Order: sequence, then structure tokens, then C-alpha cells
Amino acid sequence: MEVVQVLHMNKGAGETSYAKNSKVQSKIISITKTVIEEAIIELLCKNLPESMGIADLGCSSGPNTLTVISEIIDIIYSKCSNLGCPTPELRICLNDLYSNDFNDVFGSLPAFYNKLKEEKGTDFGQCFITGVPGSFYGRLFPRKSMHFVHSSSSLHWLSQVPPGLDSKASTAINKGRIYISKISPQSVLDSYMLQFQKDFSLFLKSRSDEIAPGGCMVLSFTGRKSMDPTAIESCHQWELLAQALMNMVSEGLIPEEKVNTFNAPYYGPCAEELGLEVQKEGSFIMDRLEAFEIDWDGSVDMPNTINGTLSGGQRVAKTIRAVIESMLESHFGRDIMDDLFQRHADLVDKHLAKTRTKYTNLVIHLVRKG
Amino acid sequence: MEVVQVLHMNKGAGETSYAKNSKVQSKIISITKTVIEEAIIELLCKNLPESMGIADLGCSSGPNTLTVISEIIDIIYSKCSNLGCPTPELRICLNDLYSNDFNDVFGSLPAFYNKLKEEKGTDFGQCFITGVPGSFYGRLFPRKSMHFVHSSSSLHWLSQVPPGLDSKASTAINKGRIYISKISPQSVLDSYMLQFQKDFSLFLKSRSDEIAPGGCMVLSFTGRKSMDPTAIESCHQWELLAQALMNMVSEGLIPEEKVNTFNAPYYGPCAEELGLEVQKEGSFIMDRLEAFEIDWDGSVDMPNTINGTLSGGQRVAKTIRAVIESMLESHFGRDIMDDLFQRHADLVDKHLAKTRTKYTNLVIHLVRKG
Repeated sequence: MEVVQVLHMNKGAGETSYAKNSKVQSKIISITKTVIEEAIIELLCKNLPESMGIADLGCSSGPNTLTVISEIIDIIYSKCSNLGCPTPELRICLNDLYSNDFNDVFGSLPAFYNKLKEEKGTDFGQCFITGVPGSFYGRLFPRKSMHFVHSSSSLHWLSQVPPGLDSKASTAINKGRIYISKISPQSVLDSYMLQFQKDFSLFLKSRSDEIAPGGCMVLSFTGRKSMDPTAIESCHQWELLAQALMNMVSEGLIPEEKVNTFNAPYYGPCAEELGLEVQKEGSFIMDRLEAFEIDWDGSVDMPNTINGTLSGGQRVAKTIRAVIESMLESHFGRDIMDDLFQRHADLVDKHLAKTRTKYTNLVIHLVRKG
Repeated sequence: MEVVQVLHMNKGAGETSYAKNSKVQSKIISITKTVIEEAIIELLCKNLPESMGIADLGCSSGPNTLTVISEIIDIIYSKCSNLGCPTPELRICLNDLYSNDFNDVFGSLPAFYNKLKEEKGTDFGQCFITGVPGSFYGRLFPRKSMHFVHSSSSLHWLSQVPPGLDSKASTAINKGRIYISKISPQSVLDSYMLQFQKDFSLFLKSRSDEIAPGGCMVLSFTGRKSMDPTAIESCHQWELLAQALMNMVSEGLIPEEKVNTFNAPYYGPCAEELGLEVQKEGSFIMDRLEAFEIDWDGSVDMPNTINGTLSGGQRVAKTIRAVIESMLESHFGRDIMDDLFQRHADLVDKHLAKTRTKYTNLVIHLVRKG
């Protein structure tokens, strides 16, 4: 768990903060909205609970955190209005790791509650928003207390770097491997796949204890279309970062040893792997699985800097930096971050000039068996 | 609610932080421990729930936050062991205002959970700790979800300065009145008493919706022994601060107007007032009410500074500063704080040289009617 403890989105509202650099994740949320909507409507039509437990796992902090919650509330409110039923009491749990900036999230709640009251009026039932810190690879909520569980852009993070990898890494012939790549030895691929299987099945087991029969989950995360984990589509984003690190090694700015011992706790699964774990765990029915693609840049509008418009590479680098900087910083130190991400941005620009690259995202809808 | 929104304990772990200056509150918690223990044991003997809702209202941040929770868990664990029953699933809610330093609290949870596992072993049931931001003068939790509600050193804070007080204050003949004093006009006293009645009855009404029949509360807070709100015992702490402020006015460091328009949202009730509100609201039986006294200094050990041992006045001033600085800062500005609390410490020293002064604390045990 060591590495994930230092994985948190960049805090605050500064230039490199997650709050200012989370448009890709926001785009993903808006694409998955239809899936969320259909899942909630199906749920409410089957059984309208008096008190409804809702969780957002890996809620992070910044504008996206309450956007999802706001959408979920809107869907419930509008469906209950259509049905002519009172809205249930909503118990909304925002989950992320202990190091998440919950102060930021809680600070925006008074305005959120006021808006809710203005828009929905006083007929709208009670809505209680709480912070639940902890790893979702383990129990978070009381038994059978949840009805709808959502998670976006989080489940591609493993609970830890697969154990025993450090020693393998130091003997690996390829330099700059910070994630599964085309030249990873098979043992590294196996370790990552095994860690994913362990984590995802623990995730399902934990949620199966917590979700009431008939309740459901909508989960979206980075994955891959190909069954081959070394397919180029899922390697680009890490390979370019590895290249930037290796450039710095060649200039003597980072010891090569440091790069060889860095591994990211990241795995983008394919549909088949997901299906297998869901089937093995046995508590959920996979009602839906969809893959969709998000441009690395282009389709995402990002704010301009004071110096003018950012290049595509800079936008991509900023998005990635906001998410993984805490992790890199704890391994490589804070001092090299600006330099590293400038190099990374340049490499992304060169890459994008040759080929338009996309993230593959998967979204799944799982229903808890009765 | 405006004033209370800026009331939060001093954050972080620095010299003026609440974390480093909360020994008086810690002393209060240790004195009320017996009351908490007897209340919980009575509760568990009547009915052992499968899932037990526990809340700490005004949990703050720093060492006291998890001390109370740890004591409550110990009591439950030991009672269940005696009864030969499994411990219930514990749903623990830490509540404070939106501006509370929840990041600090959450950051200490991994160590807390590890200690729990070490001490209690794996037979101990699940324990889920969540953060519930919001004012306790209003609903915080789902209906009938709570079994034991605790609050320490928080309920003497009103939801707001009584409305309409500012204009009265500006016509008041006394200077430096920042709280009810011997020379407050009757209308000011009435406004404060009315605000207390409104707030405390809303507090009781909200908790009566949330606490399951047979559930209970143990509440402790600063109060007074005399029925007269201008009795000297409850005025000292504010009068000395007012004197420090007026000294600064006389030296031209603060405009007099600023002091005249400052009012603290604070009221220390007496037993009779509490009894009346509990009776009026009607959902709770007051099982116990006790008053006890805490020395302003003397009985409390505080850490030394680098420059040696602090005087009694400095210790008292630091304790008060950690609690009310955020409120004073938002009215008077940050710049005068060091000067103000140095003057305050000197005045407290002079005062303590003449007379040993104590805080009066009340602790009540209220049981939700069936």
C-alpha cells in the first residue's frame, strides 16, 4: 500500500492543481452520464428505498467531485417527480484515500447545499453528504447500506506496485520501464495481471458486502481494447514519461538506478479480464460494458496560461501531472518536477504531430444479485 | 451563521495550534469519561444493536478528536467481551463545521485503525469512521441512525451572534463589551438568552430525529452555576480579553468602533435553562446533570516553549487563542493577534495573582424516549 498512500491529486487551486487540470476526467464523467442515468432509473423502478445510500469512490477534490453527485441527485429528483413519489433520504458518501484534500471538498458544500435548496425547493428530502476516507480495496461502508456506487477514473490504480517487482526491475534490460511496455519481461506482465486480479476481486467482494440486493455500480476507468497488455495503445502515456525521465538520466540529472526502481501501481484491464473477475466473485451481474475513446487533447478545452495558449503536449502533460505528480515527487524529489513535465510536454507534442492518440476508457454497470 | 462559519480551532501543529493547546479540553474529556462509560453500558444492557451509530459533535482536529472515539470503542469492546457478545458494527461519525481541519483528522486514521487491529484483534467487528461536516444546529444524520451522541466543549458556541445586536452595541455606554458583562443592558442579555433557547431547542429537535429510541447523548460544555448570566464567574474570560482590546484602542492600534461591533456567539447556560429546554422539546429524559470546575491553569500541564516555562497567563491565553483566534482574526485582522494575546496573557497573570479562577463545566446525559 506504500505507493498508493502518496497517490493523491495535486491539491489546491494553483496552476498545476488537479482542480484546474481535470477536464479529461470531466469529459469522461459526461460521457458516462447516460450509463449512470439508465442504471439509477432501473434501480428506482425496481424498488424505491426510503433511505438511499450513494457512494462515489475515488471522489478526489476539485470541480468534478460535486459534479457527479449533482448529476446523480438530479436524476433521482427528476425520476421521483415523474413517478409522483417523494425523493428518498439520500446518504451520500464521498470516498478517497486518507491523503485526499477533503477540506477542499467540504469547503464547497455550503454553496452546494444552498443551490440544492434553491433548485429543488423544500419538498426535496434530506441529503447528507459525508467523507469516507480509506482504500476501496477493502470495506468502507456498513453491510447492505449502499444502493448506488459510482467510480470514475480511479480503478486503474492498483492497491500497490506488484510485490517483488523492484528486484526484477533492477535486472531488466530495458531502461526507463515505469509500466508494462512492449519490452517488459513476461514475469513483470504476470505480476501486474495478478495484482489487478487480486485487487479487483477484493474490490468486488467488499462492495458485495456493502451493496443491498438489487443495488448497482457504474464504474469507469482507463482500460484497453486489446487482450494484449503490451499493445501500444496502453503504453504510450507511460513510455513518453519514461523517455522524459531517461533524457534526464542521460544529462546526469537523475541517477539511472532511480528510474529502474520506479514502478507505477497502474493497470488498464481489458473487457475479458473484467468479465472473468466478475464471474469468479459471483455477487454481481454485468449488465453492460462499453468502451469509448478520449482524445489526449483536441476534444478537451483547457484554460489558457498568462503567456497565451498552451500546446497540445503541454495540456496533456498538465493533466497527467495533476494526477501522478505526488507519486513521482515522493520517488524522485520535488526539484525535478518542472523540468520533467516540460520535457514530457515536448515529447507529447512530437508524438501528437505524428499520430493522434486516445485513451481507451471502459464503463461497466454491475447489478448486485438478490 | 456568519460568525460561526469562521469559527474553527487553529489548524496544523504549530505553536498556536489547537492540537498543541487543547489540554483544558482534554482534561474535560477525562473528567466526563465516567459519565460516558455509564451511559454506554446502560445503553448496551438495554439493547445491543447489530450496527451502532456513534457521533462526536464538534470533534475538532488534533489529539482530542480520536481520544474520545478511542475511549468509546474501548468501553463498547470491554462491555461486549463481558457479556460474551460480538461487538456491533460501529458507524462512527466525526462532525464539525465545514472549515474544520478534517484532512488532519483523516491523516491520523491509518495509525488509529492499525492500533485498533493490534489491540482488539480480528474478533473485533467492523469500524467505519466518517467525516460529517455541518452545523449541529440542524440535521446531520439519517433518521434514527444514531445510538450514542457525544459532544464536548462545543455547545457553548451559538449558531450566530444574536441578530440586531450590532446596533444595540453601538449605542451601548460600556466600551469593550464583547460578551454579556455585568454592565450589559438587559436587552443584550435577553437577546443572548433567546438565541441560546432557539439554538439548543433546534439542537434537541435535530437529534431527536436522528437518535433511535433508547439511544442517548452525553454533552459537556462551559456553563455557569448561577442563574444570573452576569455572575462574575462566567464573565472573567471575556472581560480580560475585552480589556486587552481596549488597551489597544487607547494606544490607537484598533479603532474603538471595531471593538464595539464585535460580539462573540457564546453563551454558557445554567442547569435551569437546560432543564427547561429539554422539557419543552419533549423527546429526551435528562438522566443526569453534573457541574464541575476546571482551573484556568494549575491543574493543566502545558508544554514548555523554547524560551522556558510559560506563565499561567500565557498558558491560559494560548488555550483561548487556539479556539477563538479565527473569529477575532476575521474581525480585527491577523496583524494584531500576537500583540493582543500577549496583552491578554499579562492581564490573566495579574488576575490569577489575585484570585484563582475556574471554568464551570456542565455535563448532561439525555436518553431518547422510546
